[in-house]
Amino acid sequence: MAATALRRLQLHNINPNVKAAKYAVRGELAVKAEEYRVRLAQGDKSLPFDSVIFANIGNPQQLDQKPITFFRQVLSLLENPLLLENPEVLKETFGYKQDVIDRAKTLLNSIHNVGAYSHSQGAPVIRESVAKFIEARDGYSANPQDLYLCAGASSGVNTLLNVICHAPHAGILVPIPQYPLYTATLSLLNANCVPYLLEEEKAWGTDVDAIRKSLETAKASGIDVRAIVVINPGNPTGASLSPDDIKNVLDLAAEEKLVVIADEVYQTNVFVGEFTSFKKRLRQLQAEVPGKYDHIELASLHSVSKGMVGECGHRGGYFELVGFEPDVAAQIYKFVSIMLCPPVIGQCLVELMVNPPKEGEPSYELYEKEYHGIRNGLHQRALALYKAFQRMEGVECQEPQGAMYLFPKITLPPKAVEAATAENRKADEFYCLRLLDATGICVVPGSGFGQKENTLHFRTTFLAPGTDWVERIVKFHSEFIEKYK
Amino acid sequence: MAATALRRLQLHNINPNVKAAKYAVRGELAVKAEEYRVRLAQGDKSLPFDSVIFANIGNPQQLDQKPITFFRQVLSLLENPLLLENPEVLKETFGYKQDVIDRAKTLLNSIHNVGAYSHSQGAPVIRESVAKFIEARDGYSANPQDLYLCAGASSGVNTLLNVICHAPHAGILVPIPQYPLYTATLSLLNANCVPYLLEEEKAWGTDVDAIRKSLETAKASGIDVRAIVVINPGNPTGASLSPDDIKNVLDLAAEEKLVVIADEVYQTNVFVGEFTSFKKRLRQLQAEVPGKYDHIELASLHSVSKGMVGECGHRGGYFELVGFEPDVAAQIYKFVSIMLCPPVIGQCLVELMVNPPKEGEPSYELYEKEYHGIRNGLHQRALALYKAFQRMEGVECQEPQGAMYLFPKITLPPKAVEAATAENRKADEFYCLRLLDATGICVVPGSGFGQKENTLHFRTTFLAPGTDWVERIVKFHSEFIEKYK
Repeated sequence: MAATALRRLQLHNINPNVKAAKYAVRGELAVKAEEYRVRLAQGDKSLPFDSVIFANIGNPQQLDQKPITFFRQVLSLLENPLLLENPEVLKETFGYKQDVIDRAKTLLNSIHNVGAYSHSQGAPVIRESVAKFIEARDGYSANPQDLYLCAGASSGVNTLLNVICHAPHAGILVPIPQYPLYTATLSLLNANCVPYLLEEEKAWGTDVDAIRKSLETAKASGIDVRAIVVINPGNPTGASLSPDDIKNVLDLAAEEKLVVIADEVYQTNVFVGEFTSFKKRLRQLQAEVPGKYDHIELASLHSVSKGMVGECGHRGGYFELVGFEPDVAAQIYKFVSIMLCPPVIGQCLVELMVNPPKEGEPSYELYEKEYHGIRNGLHQRALALYKAFQRMEGVECQEPQGAMYLFPKITLPPKAVEAATAENRKADEFYCLRLLDATGICVVPGSGFGQKENTLHFRTTFLAPGTDWVERIVKFHSEFIEKYK
Repeated sequence: MAATALRRLQLHNINPNVKAAKYAVRGELAVKAEEYRVRLAQGDKSLPFDSVIFANIGNPQQLDQKPITFFRQVLSLLENPLLLENPEVLKETFGYKQDVIDRAKTLLNSIHNVGAYSHSQGAPVIRESVAKFIEARDGYSANPQDLYLCAGASSGVNTLLNVICHAPHAGILVPIPQYPLYTATLSLLNANCVPYLLEEEKAWGTDVDAIRKSLETAKASGIDVRAIVVINPGNPTGASLSPDDIKNVLDLAAEEKLVVIADEVYQTNVFVGEFTSFKKRLRQLQAEVPGKYDHIELASLHSVSKGMVGECGHRGGYFELVGFEPDVAAQIYKFVSIMLCPPVIGQCLVELMVNPPKEGEPSYELYEKEYHGIRNGLHQRALALYKAFQRMEGVECQEPQGAMYLFPKITLPPKAVEAATAENRKADEFYCLRLLDATGICVVPGSGFGQKENTLHFRTTFLAPGTDWVERIVKFHSEFIEKYK
């Protein structure tokens, strides 16, 4: 018998939950885009484009976004503390200011060495900084013991869903469209995704009636719905929830006894209005209506990967537990301890994100300049892309409010849909593949995030610099529509 | 009703697999040791010791082990590439040599920015270095496409077990005593741990007959045994497997169609004989007996956390797949892509570990000095501890061969066992708690790793500097034995 047939692991006999999981952000299109990139790098001149634009993934520093100088200076000292002994680093040519030195020393005094495992929940000194940050942001206190540093928010979501879900009856309400981490993790846990549709017409707002309907349907089919995920600002939609929207979700959670998982990793990427955290709104409501909201369990997540920090390669983040039973929290602690600790340098980036240079400190001016430069750049690119979409036939796009994405709706001619079917593909996938082949621009089909039946979308980041690539999309689109008219 | 009773998540209704998981390395004893450390730091003079010794966890840089200069210099440049533009860093006072600069530039040319997500399998340029390292170590080629960088070996084990195990019938052969990551992860997956006892009398060697017996028993009870875990050099035992031992395991794997998971994170911590990798032995056997071993699936793991590198806080590691079906490997890729990528700085440490300065290069001399200094220090401490155990009544310890641990067997007086039972504790747990209370030394009871029935052990690292703490154990032990005689 051939060796291959004798192997123990075959596609049909591995963990079916792994097989069932879907993760489009790094799927077929991303693999093909990487192949194109390699071909271009090797000098291939046969492609109809001269660069690949990875608009499929919120990876700011892969594109134009520069790291914030203060952050990286501190990290370089943490990696090589011998530099701290050298007064020359304070010279103009090195650019290290006294507050950089001080911060590195303070951190090393507590954590000793970034090469050592930390506390499994994260270094205590950093959790204290996060607690102060939350307190300053919300006006309500936070407890370092309720904070769990993690290797990016993805790892935090994984922890929370692992503890919450008991297979096979548990269900979690997930917005559609959603970031596919949620459905993929639920597949791995053999738990049920209970989808609720966001309202595209209302700037992708949250419709509590729609949530309630999904919840009732799920309950009727025997699913034990235990939690609701809210992504605010939204991914892939870019929507930003109002305090009223948040109250509606909390009302529902209080009534139905749902744990609230608030994915707030885009909290600084807000262009319209201002960000309100679920924690703040919860504390307000608890003060306003004593008793009604006291039993709510909220887990909210933040990350160094997004916003003006954009340090996703460092895998840093945290989640805060509010109102969890202590013995449930103890299980969460045990779960994270199995993986020992989050990367310590990533933890230090969390510290820097939540505790940046303050007015009057030597690094403040440069920090502010860099921070607002990134912020304005993102907003401008979002608007440029939005305007381009408005010029395109059969494309409708909500005004950009936040996050790093636009999620335009596309209406394709019936012949294009037929051509897709002939290739055994979904129409949006077909469109995105043709876009990649023609322009080198990689976006993700709406079907990777979920979308209302009989609608088609794609998600694109607005991180890539320049406007040339936007024009490539415009040109491709009009040729595509022409071809299949 | 009180808010607490209204909460959705209660200990009795969360994921039972999480509840069932056990992870003693960071359990009650570790928590208590941390409390003692905090009390001492706050000036508490009421304790009978003046320092806490964390001998419960292989965390070299928390204790005496210094990071290797070359590694950290490169990392500091990766974090702050502006330093690369400054010729002054080459000055004597900074200590950066030209090969440090060159390595940082080479890495940045490929990965661009340590703040960006990399390929989910790890940066291609680093996987190429790992492949060359394996080739040089084993004398057999390795393919970068078969390599998966991961956030420490723990994360790699998690990936492999997730893909291999289908609940509830899958079973994995795990050595006893074992590192509890394995049993904890199997609990999370609702899969079966099929234990096989190591032979304490034969320096914790692997007894294939014992494995076969466990396998047959498991099969007879309906378990689908799919893989065997081998930890070489052993944790917690410190044992190092001979080429013959490895052949016996591979013979069994070939006959019984078992995936082999070779946890080789201690491959450079070998004091007796020399390390032979499972990959090398497999390739040798495949050449010697054509056909017989061709269908074997092997996954072997390595890490930056242990050895002379000791950079566990950076969470870096890799695993290599040998002989896996391509469509199974594709599922492994999808699984790791859900968590996006391993920490990029940790990936860079993998590069540095597998590709350190070479003879003739400017950093070579210092690197060699540091590397061998650490190595000799570990061996000396292991021997000092071993000798101390030989002086202790009722303590038997195998000669240290490798890894970072000793795992002595302790025989306790019946009265001590009764006292433990009265506290509702296992006797080894009772002993370790009393040891901590009396001396501030934190070790892990053998029951946390598994041990032969009616035997008691504890695991201690030999990382802590000095010999004072060893004498504390000797003194405590004799008083303990005296008390319960």
